[in-house]
Amino acid sequence: MSLASRRVARLAAFSLRRSAHASTSARYNSVNADDIAHFSKFLPTSTILSTLPPQSLPSSELSPFNDDWMNKYHGQSTTVVRPRNALEVSEVVKRCNERGIAIVPQGGNTGLVGGGVPIKDELLINLGNMNKVRSFDPVSGILVADAGCVLESLSEYLAPHNHIMPLDLGAKGSCQIGGNVSTNAGGLRLLRYGSLHGSVLGLEVVLPDGTILDQLSTLRKDNTGYDLKQLFIGAEGTLGIVTGVSILTAPAPQSASNVILALPKFENVLPLFVQAKRQLSEILSAFEFFDREVYDLAIKHGQGRALSEEDVEGAECFVLMETSGGKREHDEEKLNQLLETLFESDKPLINTGVLSQSPAQFASMWAIREGLTEAVSKEGKAYKYDISVPLAKFKEVVDTTREHLGSKGLLRDDAVKHVVGYGHVGDGNLHLNVVAAAYTPEIEAALEPFVYELVASYKGSVSAEHGIGVMKTHALHYSKSNVSIEWMKRIKQLFDPKGIMNPGKVLP
Amino acid sequence: MSLASRRVARLAAFSLRRSAHASTSARYNSVNADDIAHFSKFLPTSTILSTLPPQSLPSSELSPFNDDWMNKYHGQSTTVVRPRNALEVSEVVKRCNERGIAIVPQGGNTGLVGGGVPIKDELLINLGNMNKVRSFDPVSGILVADAGCVLESLSEYLAPHNHIMPLDLGAKGSCQIGGNVSTNAGGLRLLRYGSLHGSVLGLEVVLPDGTILDQLSTLRKDNTGYDLKQLFIGAEGTLGIVTGVSILTAPAPQSASNVILALPKFENVLPLFVQAKRQLSEILSAFEFFDREVYDLAIKHGQGRALSEEDVEGAECFVLMETSGGKREHDEEKLNQLLETLFESDKPLINTGVLSQSPAQFASMWAIREGLTEAVSKEGKAYKYDISVPLAKFKEVVDTTREHLGSKGLLRDDAVKHVVGYGHVGDGNLHLNVVAAAYTPEIEAALEPFVYELVASYKGSVSAEHGIGVMKTHALHYSKSNVSIEWMKRIKQLFDPKGIMNPGKVLP
Repeated sequence: MSLASRRVARLAAFSLRRSAHASTSARYNSVNADDIAHFSKFLPTSTILSTLPPQSLPSSELSPFNDDWMNKYHGQSTTVVRPRNALEVSEVVKRCNERGIAIVPQGGNTGLVGGGVPIKDELLINLGNMNKVRSFDPVSGILVADAGCVLESLSEYLAPHNHIMPLDLGAKGSCQIGGNVSTNAGGLRLLRYGSLHGSVLGLEVVLPDGTILDQLSTLRKDNTGYDLKQLFIGAEGTLGIVTGVSILTAPAPQSASNVILALPKFENVLPLFVQAKRQLSEILSAFEFFDREVYDLAIKHGQGRALSEEDVEGAECFVLMETSGGKREHDEEKLNQLLETLFESDKPLINTGVLSQSPAQFASMWAIREGLTEAVSKEGKAYKYDISVPLAKFKEVVDTTREHLGSKGLLRDDAVKHVVGYGHVGDGNLHLNVVAAAYTPEIEAALEPFVYELVASYKGSVSAEHGIGVMKTHALHYSKSNVSIEWMKRIKQLFDPKGIMNPGKVLP
Repeated sequence: MSLASRRVARLAAFSLRRSAHASTSARYNSVNADDIAHFSKFLPTSTILSTLPPQSLPSSELSPFNDDWMNKYHGQSTTVVRPRNALEVSEVVKRCNERGIAIVPQGGNTGLVGGGVPIKDELLINLGNMNKVRSFDPVSGILVADAGCVLESLSEYLAPHNHIMPLDLGAKGSCQIGGNVSTNAGGLRLLRYGSLHGSVLGLEVVLPDGTILDQLSTLRKDNTGYDLKQLFIGAEGTLGIVTGVSILTAPAPQSASNVILALPKFENVLPLFVQAKRQLSEILSAFEFFDREVYDLAIKHGQGRALSEEDVEGAECFVLMETSGGKREHDEEKLNQLLETLFESDKPLINTGVLSQSPAQFASMWAIREGLTEAVSKEGKAYKYDISVPLAKFKEVVDTTREHLGSKGLLRDDAVKHVVGYGHVGDGNLHLNVVAAAYTPEIEAALEPFVYELVASYKGSVSAEHGIGVMKTHALHYSKSNVSIEWMKRIKQLFDPKGIMNPGKVLP
């Protein structure tokens, strides 16, 4: 199937989805000139962008806000406001609540499921102008920041204080802490520092009626009633707009090492993980898995420096382990001892291990792992599934999907070229990638709902870290029971009875 | 004032409180013989205890359930049911919902704020018969257990698998994991393993209408909508009954050391904490503070082995630091290096440091810290405040309280004998203890709301880890804004419109 016909097929799918939302959107009023005039009373002109008079900007100026970064989802908002503080956000939201105007809160617009861009012509409230650190206590490590602070700039702010953010993402240069919280971002440090439900200590949230809910606590412990802020972590802006975040940061590690291990068979990954946890204990900071097929793609497309042929020979899959800790000699000794134990065993779990000897090698080994996504996209069109399944089932999911595609006659050079798996073993998070010559309705039909049903059969999650957004609302029921979805709807109804806050996202 | 008159005063206070609840309780129906007959249809007789016919037990048999362990709060329930699984809990709750009978969910009954015992004659649902481990995955460390499992028995279950529970409490021999979750228990491992909001991965909850909300996920990552289970963590059984818990356990450390440091002045605690975090990094597992006055009480009353006079001389306060990690030599080396740095400094932060050299010494040093509570109660009657305030304010809170009592003329041998402070520096959690010759209304009036107002002035928490229960509902507003309390009430109304679930607890 040609690229052109694929485009048609995809557009058809999107149109279907959009018309499904259109009936919902009809409930909302559009922003008009009166609204702009109202906003102008308390917002400087520079913080309002609109295709409506008096500005009458060309719609292209709003594209960076209306289109998601993958250029997959496209809103038609006429107006973006960029308030500078929670009070301004509150005033904007109050107006929208009175007028029945739908709102999309937007952070760095780096999401993968279309949660941060409009479906139709909702008002965009972009948090980018709220970008100040409010306070940092170097003793407790507690940071309070505006929601619009970019993750990387927070890391830079903390560096001279010898602290690091408890999360790290590929999108760190653009994503904002408020968006991270709203999407419950996972990322590369979760194994070590846990989820945001643990590290976020307080939030300031503008509720759908404009009320400011100030729970911006800077306390590690506070057992005084229901922990309401938790509801907004991962709600993707459907219950309110996060405007401020109090978060526990971690002391910066003094050293970091990594090693790539080649395994003769997948079955060895789990005993290896157990052994690594035991011997590396608190310094184990990443345990990433990738199969042979995706490694070969990475090397083919020049991601990172290849291991030697000798090191790769007979390997079914690889593990990248990272340690980070307070003292280099200690960390290296622990890692070396683990490697010795592994090699000296009667039935070694690994074929070889390549230990980084310099910062450059450290970086090039991470480059293989981090380059997998790019390698896959260079190889073909990828159907990507971000799922949680039991660790022991990683390979089974990949193999079962491959066999299923084979049984449909789709495993051929002009259809599905590769079915590969990689991900965060430590978090139970598998990235299943089906690499095809082109996106086709035939492949899509073979994959969905097949993959979701497979995930559900393991009591897994159809979205481990990317969220639901607009992309997966129809798949929510594979991971959540009817009772859970019913209670989610009640919570939504309680906080947002008019349904103006990021409509069409999260809930079907 | 004599002990007798003090009792009268206290009873009067309780009566006042009880009558305040009486009007609430009038809304509920009492358990009757028909209800018992109904429960008998699906519960074995051995799991129903009642003073009603046909059993007609003496009320003394229900005392262990009606009275809290401090013997401070006394319920008058006629009936305790002890279901064996979530379905049985659900059936009991359905009946209560239909009949308008109020319910108190009860775990190990080790709470400190009266949250786990009835106010009047609510039905007691005791979870003690739900005491089975449902599953444990040694690879991921994820444990799924019935709510009634005793914390210590879970630790014992995990030991051969080289894992530990992410929380530890003094009450571990009696408290249950469901109660721990419902009260968001903190305890001794919070500095290292974080709060239950991070480590609890899933819950099974029976809602006030009897519906079973199954969110017993065993996934570390699952971003599929609102994280409803978080609401039940710390809700003290007012939104539903936790019947099952999925929790992330931690690999067991291979070694542990501790040291007691004597400090010439309080101001040194914070730079010491910063230094310790930097040099000990990931192996720092406890950083406990106690002032000189409470140390002297501990030694006077034989708690732990005293430090030498030389070590104590000139010390204004002490810090107990614990390290735990994967390799003894490494941990000891890090700790020794920290001590060297501290001693070799131009302006040493510490006078002396006593490092444990054996398991016996390790235990005796913890015995001083853990014996503070008992020492205080041997010395006199203690007014205890479990608060969170900024680390830098620990001493200020103690001193200000002491000065305030002095200004009221209450600092004398027959009134207030000591005002002392100790607590978890790492968590910002101070235990302020006012030790008096007797409990008197005069002292109480001098302390409350003074202490709560003081805490509020620092934006602190009036209950860092003990919860609200029935004891602190009147003080909730010192730590939560009106908006927050209003939203807590709406959440309560949403989940429990009839208000049958643990009435009179948490919300005023």
